[in-house]
Amino acid sequence: MLIDSIHSPSDIKTLDTDQLLTLAAEIRSGLMNRLSKKGGHFGPNFGIVEATVALHYVFDSPKDKFVFDVSHQCYVHKILTGRKEAFFCDAHFDDVSGYTNPDESPHDFFNVGHTSTSVSLACGLAKARDLKGETGNVIAVIGDGSLSGGEALEGLDFAAELGGNLIIVVNDNDMSIAENHGGLYQNLRTLRETNGKAPCNLFRAMGLDYRFLADGNDIPALIAAFRAVRDTDRPTVVHICTKKGSGYAPAETDRENWHWHMPFDPETGKELIPGGGESYGSLTCEYLLKKMKADPRVVALAAAVPVCIGFTEEKRREAGRQFVDVGIAEEHAVAMASGIARNGGKPVFATHSSFFQRTYDQISQDLCINRSPATLLVNTASVYGMHDITHLGIFDIAMMSNIPNLVYLAPTCCEEYFAMLDWSIEQNQFPVAVRMPCNGVVHSSRRFDTDYSGLNRYEVTQQGENTAILALGDFYQLGEALAAYITEKTGTAPTLVNPRYITGTDDRLLEQLKARHSVVITLEDGILNGGFGEKIARFYGPSAMKVYSYGLKKEFLDRYQVGDVLKANHLTPEQIYCDIF
Amino acid sequence: MLIDSIHSPSDIKTLDTDQLLTLAAEIRSGLMNRLSKKGGHFGPNFGIVEATVALHYVFDSPKDKFVFDVSHQCYVHKILTGRKEAFFCDAHFDDVSGYTNPDESPHDFFNVGHTSTSVSLACGLAKARDLKGETGNVIAVIGDGSLSGGEALEGLDFAAELGGNLIIVVNDNDMSIAENHGGLYQNLRTLRETNGKAPCNLFRAMGLDYRFLADGNDIPALIAAFRAVRDTDRPTVVHICTKKGSGYAPAETDRENWHWHMPFDPETGKELIPGGGESYGSLTCEYLLKKMKADPRVVALAAAVPVCIGFTEEKRREAGRQFVDVGIAEEHAVAMASGIARNGGKPVFATHSSFFQRTYDQISQDLCINRSPATLLVNTASVYGMHDITHLGIFDIAMMSNIPNLVYLAPTCCEEYFAMLDWSIEQNQFPVAVRMPCNGVVHSSRRFDTDYSGLNRYEVTQQGENTAILALGDFYQLGEALAAYITEKTGTAPTLVNPRYITGTDDRLLEQLKARHSVVITLEDGILNGGFGEKIARFYGPSAMKVYSYGLKKEFLDRYQVGDVLKANHLTPEQIYCDIF
Repeated sequence: MLIDSIHSPSDIKTLDTDQLLTLAAEIRSGLMNRLSKKGGHFGPNFGIVEATVALHYVFDSPKDKFVFDVSHQCYVHKILTGRKEAFFCDAHFDDVSGYTNPDESPHDFFNVGHTSTSVSLACGLAKARDLKGETGNVIAVIGDGSLSGGEALEGLDFAAELGGNLIIVVNDNDMSIAENHGGLYQNLRTLRETNGKAPCNLFRAMGLDYRFLADGNDIPALIAAFRAVRDTDRPTVVHICTKKGSGYAPAETDRENWHWHMPFDPETGKELIPGGGESYGSLTCEYLLKKMKADPRVVALAAAVPVCIGFTEEKRREAGRQFVDVGIAEEHAVAMASGIARNGGKPVFATHSSFFQRTYDQISQDLCINRSPATLLVNTASVYGMHDITHLGIFDIAMMSNIPNLVYLAPTCCEEYFAMLDWSIEQNQFPVAVRMPCNGVVHSSRRFDTDYSGLNRYEVTQQGENTAILALGDFYQLGEALAAYITEKTGTAPTLVNPRYITGTDDRLLEQLKARHSVVITLEDGILNGGFGEKIARFYGPSAMKVYSYGLKKEFLDRYQVGDVLKANHLTPEQIYCDIF
Repeated sequence: MLIDSIHSPSDIKTLDTDQLLTLAAEIRSGLMNRLSKKGGHFGPNFGIVEATVALHYVFDSPKDKFVFDVSHQCYVHKILTGRKEAFFCDAHFDDVSGYTNPDESPHDFFNVGHTSTSVSLACGLAKARDLKGETGNVIAVIGDGSLSGGEALEGLDFAAELGGNLIIVVNDNDMSIAENHGGLYQNLRTLRETNGKAPCNLFRAMGLDYRFLADGNDIPALIAAFRAVRDTDRPTVVHICTKKGSGYAPAETDRENWHWHMPFDPETGKELIPGGGESYGSLTCEYLLKKMKADPRVVALAAAVPVCIGFTEEKRREAGRQFVDVGIAEEHAVAMASGIARNGGKPVFATHSSFFQRTYDQISQDLCINRSPATLLVNTASVYGMHDITHLGIFDIAMMSNIPNLVYLAPTCCEEYFAMLDWSIEQNQFPVAVRMPCNGVVHSSRRFDTDYSGLNRYEVTQQGENTAILALGDFYQLGEALAAYITEKTGTAPTLVNPRYITGTDDRLLEQLKARHSVVITLEDGILNGGFGEKIARFYGPSAMKVYSYGLKKEFLDRYQVGDVLKANHLTPEQIYCDIF
């Protein structure tokens, strides 16, 4: 195969057009090999094969520097920069991450996994180049809905002022993860329909030079377009139109579900391990649809990941105007939720724990200062959540629970989750966030409160003595196991507490525990620093109570095995028992 | 005076044009009365007098709902909505805040103080109106550089998709706090120069309807423009051009310095209490200019508040391309700093503690995951900082110190601050933030390390016994006073520790302290929740050490007296002594 002779980008520069086309086909076979067996970002990579080949043909990486936005479309770049074995050779799948990664290659400059960062990062590379008096192109590649994110728009706006060489390749495949949202995508459509000639042009309005290429899957045309802007002395947009999932019919047809895909049979496109069973996503969707039918003021908000609360295309249609996908625009989503709540609506905004990081200030300023009674659903907030360094769900407690006025609730099971969610939607006093459990859908026949407005009252679920276990959220089951283990080992049952509220301490209960307990153990599914256990430790600081706080170390984990991480942090009943007794 | 008969917006609807002009003049006299004696946002309010009069003339507040961006330009709105005494009557100055405030009036919907939030909040009000089947206009008023903020751009992009009635008044005064930055302001200039007719139009590119008004200080023209869009059924931008500081010559001339102004003599424009003396702003500027001259890779970044590190217009010119004001775009600033550092530059980005909230995700993802050795200077991070509910500087420890890989340093005085800053600029291992002291420029003859790469080593500045005081950053002086007080009262000197590192515990030292101490006191200038003291409490949780953590309660303070807040939080040596001994 031709690919056998490609070890670095310089190896493709001597190929002729036919060979480049052959190479593109071989690259797709490598992508198919990895993605069908391991899963991953299918549509973005199949769509950008030709553009990546052309970029490496025209530019001289790593002297010329590429920054891939979100970087989930960097697989082809990896194949061309010395990492092809991770795609063609099954034993090497784990050699690479799913994102750009400077630890893997000098052709990668950043670990990137959140959207909308490429233009700003590229501006920085370009600025440093200019300060040092060096030369070379800096190229940001952005698409898949990322343009609507505030950071991208800030970057585009600033780029014109930066001046000098900067090339922004807008990979326009007319899709985010789901369909695109926002007025600017109407402008992209107009530009597509006018072959880039419409006088009203978002990029020119931002002060940038602009070129258009209708067929972003045509290698010779791409090469010509990139050559035309190479070594430009002005920030320049190259708007290319690509087909998401190009080259694989099921992915071209159902672009939303093939954005990221589980392992599948390449012949049929069918998943190898079919999903199924209960999930908090679909349960939440069914619950919200029911609420919406009963109350026109209820509205669900998503920011480009509607499926994290089960809103598939069909469910979105069912919800009608009571479902809003704002696109990749988390800041807008939280502020808009505050506005909706302020004017008597009942908004529920859901996204992943990691993406709530994009809207800290809006949670604080727009929502919490104003005490707007909106509901935030924090998804995959857990060591059991996503395992990539850029998508970790273990920082939200530290980030959100220290914001005044917010009520952050940690349900321990399915029934408690819906009790809390229902209360939150119906109340109009507090901004509320609910940390969706992430250790599977656990059911319980315990009785749960329907009113959580008496803040910071912890629930004693088992009255014991000597030791009290405060087991937060989806670590409650770990607390149950630990309680059983301690009982078995010592013959004395400890007290077990479901704290429920992450954002405050139940001082009265904590005071009472002093009477018959000398040890308190806290368990939380997140980093310890800035977290729940430290608040308990502070409460007992001046007292004789011994406090042991268990949770995760403050670190950026990457592609981890949950079991390994739990062990490393002493998060098994046996380890905790050994530590203390 | 005509103003005597104005008690609510309905009172101006019967006035004729001459009377409205008279009213505008009287309003300016009220503004002058308050601002010359109390200080405040001068330019924004003098510039928007006519527009606010016209808005209240045409629309029917509070059924029609105004959202003022940043809301530092809401004084005229306050005068017209029942709060004029706070401007005309000195005894009532303190009746109102400097921002919109729902506690003051049903004409205000949000506490707002950060920029770029109005469009998203207004989208929320409009969405709730539509869900409830109600009518009425929702009007966002945005200007003063706010358009470049990511949240504003997300909001503009989404607004078109929202549909229905939404009016966005773009108050274009060609200024941010300093000059505007970003390519979109070139487009605004083109629109001004073409009387709104240029075919390339940022707002239309975002999918919005658009109207232009050349003279935004002309009441009849404003009334006509607002009438034309009243009850529109589509999101519509009204672009009005106003003169910042209009009606007061010094403010029209020197717009940057009159954006916000200290009390002054109206005759001369001279400040009543001249500034002067040392400030960390000007000291930092002089230091950075010197570094820049010695090293072309050093670059200072600001986000529309360049003066927070002393970069006046003159100093910005002196720094040339080694100073970059990105405009109101904190997300972009942090990501760009990461890119600069990644490519061998030495970026220093400074802004206020409260504004760092706008870039949590960029600090985590763009900067810290990538270990980019950029420097962040965190200004007014203190109970001594800004006192408005929207600008508090007491949350940054909780927000930033729990992000992995970040080294957050807390200097105790001027000499230590510059030692840390210099180390940070010269090193290339860590993303570093420095918490600028805020309790005046305190000098010290103590010797300070020049190398801080051995992380988390606390410094014992006074060896004592029984009690150890860990006094962080600019609460170190409180620690000294407490140590002296304890010595005086007990006859035994406590140990005094300068922790220096906010982001980690010195486990070895903390362990050693157990030998001769039974009490540890932590002092920090920020909220306790998620802060430094809790980490110390967690460390000692399983031990016999008594830990007392002192800092601020987790709450949104507003317009407070520092002394009151310190007392309420037991932050005087006497109170602490009484609590413990």
